[in-house]
Amino acid sequence: MCAHQAMPLEATPTLEVAVGGTESNVAIALARLGHRSAWVSRLPANPIGRRIARDVAAHGVDVSHVIWADAAEKAGLYFIEFGAAPRPDRVLYERRDSAIARLEADGLDAAFLASGRTLHLTGITPALGPGCRAAWLASAQAARAAGRRVTLDVNFRAKLWTPESARAALEAIFPHVDVLFSGLRDLALLFGVPAEPEAAARTVAAAWRLPLVVVTLGAEGALAYEHASGRLLREPVFPTQVQDRIGSGDAFAAGFLHGSGLGSDGGAAGDLARGLRCGNALAALKQTTLGDTSWATRAELDELLRGAPADPRRVSR
Amino acid sequence: MCAHQAMPLEATPTLEVAVGGTESNVAIALARLGHRSAWVSRLPANPIGRRIARDVAAHGVDVSHVIWADAAEKAGLYFIEFGAAPRPDRVLYERRDSAIARLEADGLDAAFLASGRTLHLTGITPALGPGCRAAWLASAQAARAAGRRVTLDVNFRAKLWTPESARAALEAIFPHVDVLFSGLRDLALLFGVPAEPEAAARTVAAAWRLPLVVVTLGAEGALAYEHASGRLLREPVFPTQVQDRIGSGDAFAAGFLHGSGLGSDGGAAGDLARGLRCGNALAALKQTTLGDTSWATRAELDELLRGAPADPRRVSR
Amino acid sequence: MCAHQAMPLEATPTLEVAVGGTESNVAIALARLGHRSAWVSRLPANPIGRRIARDVAAHGVDVSHVIWADAAEKAGLYFIEFGAAPRPDRVLYERRDSAIARLEADGLDAAFLASGRTLHLTGITPALGPGCRAAWLASAQAARAAGRRVTLDVNFRAKLWTPESARAALEAIFPHVDVLFSGLRDLALLFGVPAEPEAAARTVAAAWRLPLVVVTLGAEGALAYEHASGRLLREPVFPTQVQDRIGSGDAFAAGFLHGSGLGSDGGAAGDLARGLRCGNALAALKQTTLGDTSWATRAELDELLRGAPADPRRVSR
Amino acid sequence: MCAHQAMPLEATPTLEVAVGGTESNVAIALARLGHRSAWVSRLPANPIGRRIARDVAAHGVDVSHVIWADAAEKAGLYFIEFGAAPRPDRVLYERRDSAIARLEADGLDAAFLASGRTLHLTGITPALGPGCRAAWLASAQAARAAGRRVTLDVNFRAKLWTPESARAALEAIFPHVDVLFSGLRDLALLFGVPAEPEAAARTVAAAWRLPLVVVTLGAEGALAYEHASGRLLREPVFPTQVQDRIGSGDAFAAGFLHGSGLGSDGGAAGDLARGLRCGNALAALKQTTLGDTSWATRAELDELLRGAPADPRRVSR
Amino acid sequence: MCAHQAMPLEATPTLEVAVGGTESNVAIALARLGHRSAWVSRLPANPIGRRIARDVAAHGVDVSHVIWADAAEKAGLYFIEFGAAPRPDRVLYERRDSAIARLEADGLDAAFLASGRTLHLTGITPALGPGCRAAWLASAQAARAAGRRVTLDVNFRAKLWTPESARAALEAIFPHVDVLFSGLRDLALLFGVPAEPEAAARTVAAAWRLPLVVVTLGAEGALAYEHASGRLLREPVFPTQVQDRIGSGDAFAAGFLHGSGLGSDGGAAGDLARGLRCGNALAALKQTTLGDTSWATRAELDELLRGAPADPRRVSR
Amino acid sequence: MCAHQAMPLEATPTLEVAVGGTESNVAIALARLGHRSAWVSRLPANPIGRRIARDVAAHGVDVSHVIWADAAEKAGLYFIEFGAAPRPDRVLYERRDSAIARLEADGLDAAFLASGRTLHLTGITPALGPGCRAAWLASAQAARAAGRRVTLDVNFRAKLWTPESARAALEAIFPHVDVLFSGLRDLALLFGVPAEPEAAARTVAAAWRLPLVVVTLGAEGALAYEHASGRLLREPVFPTQVQDRIGSGDAFAAGFLHGSGLGSDGGAAGDLARGLRCGNALAALKQTTLGDTSWATRAELDELLRGAPADPRRVSR
Repeated sequence: MCAHQAMPLEATPTLEVAVGGTESNVAIALARLGHRSAWVSRLPANPIGRRIARDVAAHGVDVSHVIWADAAEKAGLYFIEFGAAPRPDRVLYERRDSAIARLEADGLDAAFLASGRTLHLTGITPALGPGCRAAWLASAQAARAAGRRVTLDVNFRAKLWTPESARAALEAIFPHVDVLFSGLRDLALLFGVPAEPEAAARTVAAAWRLPLVVVTLGAEGALAYEHASGRLLREPVFPTQVQDRIGSGDAFAAGFLHGSGLGSDGGAAGDLARGLRCGNALAALKQTTLGDTSWATRAELDELLRGAPADPRRVSR
Repeated sequence: MCAHQAMPLEATPTLEVAVGGTESNVAIALARLGHRSAWVSRLPANPIGRRIARDVAAHGVDVSHVIWADAAEKAGLYFIEFGAAPRPDRVLYERRDSAIARLEADGLDAAFLASGRTLHLTGITPALGPGCRAAWLASAQAARAAGRRVTLDVNFRAKLWTPESARAALEAIFPHVDVLFSGLRDLALLFGVPAEPEAAARTVAAAWRLPLVVVTLGAEGALAYEHASGRLLREPVFPTQVQDRIGSGDAFAAGFLHGSGLGSDGGAAGDLARGLRCGNALAALKQTTLGDTSWATRAELDELLRGAPADPRRVSR
Repeated sequence: MCAHQAMPLEATPTLEVAVGGTESNVAIALARLGHRSAWVSRLPANPIGRRIARDVAAHGVDVSHVIWADAAEKAGLYFIEFGAAPRPDRVLYERRDSAIARLEADGLDAAFLASGRTLHLTGITPALGPGCRAAWLASAQAARAAGRRVTLDVNFRAKLWTPESARAALEAIFPHVDVLFSGLRDLALLFGVPAEPEAAARTVAAAWRLPLVVVTLGAEGALAYEHASGRLLREPVFPTQVQDRIGSGDAFAAGFLHGSGLGSDGGAAGDLARGLRCGNALAALKQTTLGDTSWATRAELDELLRGAPADPRRVSR
Repeated sequence: MCAHQAMPLEATPTLEVAVGGTESNVAIALARLGHRSAWVSRLPANPIGRRIARDVAAHGVDVSHVIWADAAEKAGLYFIEFGAAPRPDRVLYERRDSAIARLEADGLDAAFLASGRTLHLTGITPALGPGCRAAWLASAQAARAAGRRVTLDVNFRAKLWTPESARAALEAIFPHVDVLFSGLRDLALLFGVPAEPEAAARTVAAAWRLPLVVVTLGAEGALAYEHASGRLLREPVFPTQVQDRIGSGDAFAAGFLHGSGLGSDGGAAGDLARGLRCGNALAALKQTTLGDTSWATRAELDELLRGAPADPRRVSR
Repeated sequence: MCAHQAMPLEATPTLEVAVGGTESNVAIALARLGHRSAWVSRLPANPIGRRIARDVAAHGVDVSHVIWADAAEKAGLYFIEFGAAPRPDRVLYERRDSAIARLEADGLDAAFLASGRTLHLTGITPALGPGCRAAWLASAQAARAAGRRVTLDVNFRAKLWTPESARAALEAIFPHVDVLFSGLRDLALLFGVPAEPEAAARTVAAAWRLPLVVVTLGAEGALAYEHASGRLLREPVFPTQVQDRIGSGDAFAAGFLHGSGLGSDGGAAGDLARGLRCGNALAALKQTTLGDTSWATRAELDELLRGAPADPRRVSR
Repeated sequence: MCAHQAMPLEATPTLEVAVGGTESNVAIALARLGHRSAWVSRLPANPIGRRIARDVAAHGVDVSHVIWADAAEKAGLYFIEFGAAPRPDRVLYERRDSAIARLEADGLDAAFLASGRTLHLTGITPALGPGCRAAWLASAQAARAAGRRVTLDVNFRAKLWTPESARAALEAIFPHVDVLFSGLRDLALLFGVPAEPEAAARTVAAAWRLPLVVVTLGAEGALAYEHASGRLLREPVFPTQVQDRIGSGDAFAAGFLHGSGLGSDGGAAGDLARGLRCGNALAALKQTTLGDTSWATRAELDELLRGAPADPRRVSR
């Protein structure tokens, strides 16, 4: 739920209702680009839980494996106050004790999680509780055992746990990870690697034998480092009139998976340059709309990649 | 799209965007009660077409067989002005030349249409054009040939065609129909049957050998007449604070299919009394919300059927 | 400007902006029924003044003789809080020292005012100040001198002046008045006539030799008394789901002028029964929408007079 | 936070933000009638906590003794879906683990609580946790020890605890209570007293030696039973166009305290009939606005008690 | 109708209703600057048609010659999704088969069209159908025959017709045109003239003996070329915080007609420099508001031309 | 009341209701930073007057000494139209004859005004009428006589009075003033001092023996000149994405009083550099929200002064 723009959360007469969350953001963004995707979570069987599932399903994401908890459980909530320099965006999360935080270690359907081509995870889940952490690790193991690709976005949240706890959890899952996404700052904070982007990517990939490390650099673009080949590519961002930054990291990950072919149903070995360009483009498009959701279609993404001019697009009949 | 309440369409500064249509209303209502349902239509591949498919899919309805027309085609639109006595509701339809009206005779996937337990059709489709009419008839034939149940809601629209044209189209499809839904007035207008409800149902069922005829009577409730057994049942409406009447006929049909077991995946031979009660209850609940959509869940329907009191329902944690 | 419904004015986060005023309400209502009408006032040449003129002109009312005052003058404002029983509607007026209140005695274009078939005045204008009162009286004299019909709606406002002052002003203008409109209570309060409606109308007509007296009786309908013939007719109201009562007296007057033929460009001698029915019908339709404005068209009025059923009206293409 | 009217919570694009809670509702209602009042709670020092305190303080309630918890704690939230018959209102509470639920036994400033003339408590507080229950009981003891009046509204919430637990908590506090407010159903449910209102009041008063028992009877009005004198009075409700029922019990309690003189700074021995009339009137006015808050002023209450007519109130200048 | 800003059309819960169209935009802009103007079109006699006429008339534009088609015809609609770089604005038009597209060759009142000082046409009308094209050409001939000035804005729409068709239609009307407005790109696309602005204007003017050619150059300003004198003037744009670009070309044309004296009732021979400055200024002001409409008054335009500072303007009383 | 953004006041369908005024803005800003503050004014006892007092009190400002005028008096109103370059913000004030303008010379409670540590006045009050001017001067005298600090913000409003009248009023109060706030332009306009900021401050301080002169310089920051010591300090503004400039001067004054210690309950001798930085920071934060109110808390101000990064602030649980 978001405050009206240019009104503090303390003052707003109404809140815009929107659904978001790092994993569902990625699933929606991929579904909108034409991929089959599914999202698994645990939600209360009440109007708020149904709203969340309904908004995710609307984009074509398979929500049939969402676990429905009792109506008296609660969905995780967050309240966003959009800032304007020098006033920052503020986000107030209420995830403690939410239905997903009560997930138990054996709560997920491992067979289903291992049935897709790629399993995408993030570093927020294990921070929500021990059951979440166990289920998260188990799902990566199951997917790997079934020969699937596992991708992971670090997404460190300092308010949920310490860097030390996060590092411990991540080190446990790294052996099962094919592609690691991270912001540069998180790498430095959690793993003590150099602040220089290329060195950071190389160091992390080497230390934990991660096949592919993709680092987002804010206004400096993004880079991908392939450990086996030593290939390192970097692509700049697209100039953007930012409306809402939240969710752009998830759009980047989805765009990268789409463009590189790694997330595709029939994806090939991985076009890293195209992955980075698609990631940057989808992140740019996401930032032009309010809310976590990436609304871009395949056609809009392709249009931006082709560098189409900024004139109004007119469709007439 | 709807005008603000208590503001004429001519005056409204904004329009509420909502998705509706008689067949999708039934599909959504059934999906929300826990049934598997799919909806087939033809939509333009533009934001408005995507919005429609997305809103239907959100409730769990399978939209994978929607036919996507060019972005420059148009979706059917309608504009509602909510009235207050003595000012009636007004609805302005723009369906001519819409993507669905351009459906061609062989445009539907007959195998898919015959793959469900029940195929639900309405009398609006054949009024949209010759292609629609041919595809509509062919789908009933295919479903029947595959041993499926075919249900049909008359829904005569005097602005789209004449009673004579409608009667001709309906007489062509009646041999393939298992359950006929109709308002009492339409029966009289199209088929010249008596205005007395029971006689009307009997006469229509006998004349066209329709196994089951279900007639809605407005404030007088609804009745079902089973031709083979001569059974005739009637159930009263639920007292309702009406917010928006549009869509209540569709909710009734869905409720009847649900309650009678005729629409159910594993439905039995048909509990007509429960069908009528469920139809009336779902229609009542629908009328308490704005928009065509029936938002009721299975739990809400059951609660109303049990006669639960009108106090606030509180869920606490 | 109006508070949101069901929110007290003290609490509302936003106000709906709407334009109203007893004379412009009548002019708009008549223009929407197909009559030529003009409205004369004095407005500040600032955005609020322009908004008022623009909203009146939109309906086809001629506003070319509005007098434009300096931008630093103010338009009359009012704030409405819609009630719900037992909480009454509340209206806070700010008319003192407004541009119209500063109208001077010779401020109006008498030739223009005498150029229409009928000059409609109300008893609010003379309460706003001595200049208003003088200009008001002069305009009636000029219209009469030019052979035009003069109609007057009493509209006594206890917060603006005393019954004694109002009576004095009205007695000065009565010799120039052809049709007097009044609520029953105002007649009793200002002129001490009997509370019984028919007696009240007769007494007032006789005492001031008013050719036609039309009395609105709230839920009891309305009556018209023609002094010369002694004819007295009464018509009941139309059952109405009231959304906003304010402006219904103005709609009644416009409907009466329309229906009786007295306000018509080519109107005949006066069909009082039809005048009362049209007045009641237009007042009923006005009460189904928010704001002072009567939005009814000629077609909607005729439909209601014919007693068309309450079903949704559908226009299809 | 409330869903838009006539939209299910599952569907609403925005939520109206409003502040409510049984004790603050009473404190606000009394402050608006001209009494000095204070409200004590525990709130997180974040925008949502500040919003709550600010909205209560706005009416003149002293919030200087609110306890400010860490910004990462949470305020109790609730989500209301307004119904329309036969669809009930639905309220989803999230109070578990909220800042107030974490109140500790010695967390309240007993001296402050005992500094007013009357301490008003409700039966919701002890249901939130053992710290709340202990602090609640201690505050009643402290107020009584200081010679203050203690009033208590039963407000049983079946979703928070069992009737048995509630009865145990209430029996512990009854020796310190001067005035007990309750709905009739709660008395029967918790204490097994007769369903007949007068007998219920007498039985409860006698069993726990409660000096005054006030019972609300829904559409049947309210009664007051004074144990010492055996006086029993009953007053009917005011006819009301209900917009929102929630908070009407709190408005009743505030109106009773005001009208009876029991809540007044300089209140006399207690005019029970006037207390009941004021309670019913304030409850009626509350129900005409959305949200928990009673917006009525002293002037509006007096106007209703005088039986002023339902015409618009106009204030002009 | 427009989507909420920063929300995709696919996602918006409401649409803002606004009226626009290239010819009515010019008529409104001129009326607001104090000129007499009229607008002729063909609209359905339903709430949407009335809304359009009402919004245009509100500004003082004479709509008395609008042709009213049957209520079941449709008004042209368009849906705007406002972009933010790199996401472009998107406009979805539905003009096919609209009431105006069904205009017949002899449908316009030639005497009325030839009664004003200047007849302004655009290149969109002939693209809507053969009747439109014939009526458009006939109106130019009639106005010229009556000694009126004819102005034409090219406004090529690639989605409505091909450059070849557009060129053919324009070549037919050029002999009757006094002033041609065009964007630079359209000139190059339709007529194959050089991309250099001055050469483009000269070439087009010479080839078709157009007395005055005015070319808008986006951020590069605008130029006017007078064929007889060979005078060529160019003026820069005003720096602008753009809110909505759509309609700025129409505002430019209106500003040019106003400033040059060519559109004025009593206009002199034509001050091209002032015309360009006024065109650029009005286009800049238009872009600061949402919707097609130019809201600028004569005073605001003059203030901008004088270079008044950017401080708030305060009007006090 | 404010128009919707990017909509002209003439066009807006709704107005946002907000409370503002230069003195209450300062009182609220200080209360939100943790200071005790009170605000004195004269308001009508009607919903609009109550709304104003309620919104000010909500932030913890003491409004117990507001003088309540009759309900038929009016509150000062203003209407804001937000601009976008080159269209300026426009503000339409209606203060004439408002309740505060009718304040009488002896209308204020001198003892209360002299009971705080600092009395803050502005140059708008004396422009509203002779009673206001007398009461204003008397309050400064009383506060000084009681040994309190008096601060004054010049705030010249050319639409309310002439520079000559303003200068006369200010010269009368200057002997009682400790701190003078002014924009640079006002100093030059009223007192004919040099346009160079430092010289202007020195000249004014010397001419009227003002102990401290603080001059705001728009984008050039602000300076403070201490007459006794000759100290002169200047601080730059904070880069800001401006949403609404109105009220930033008041936020500056409050920030200066807070930061310098001059406005603090227990403030020390005055840290001018910190005062300027806090003033600039609070003005920057105010400009990021709509409405006059400074919503910044002490924590947000301190965060900005520390130079915290622009990332979203996340609070999780």
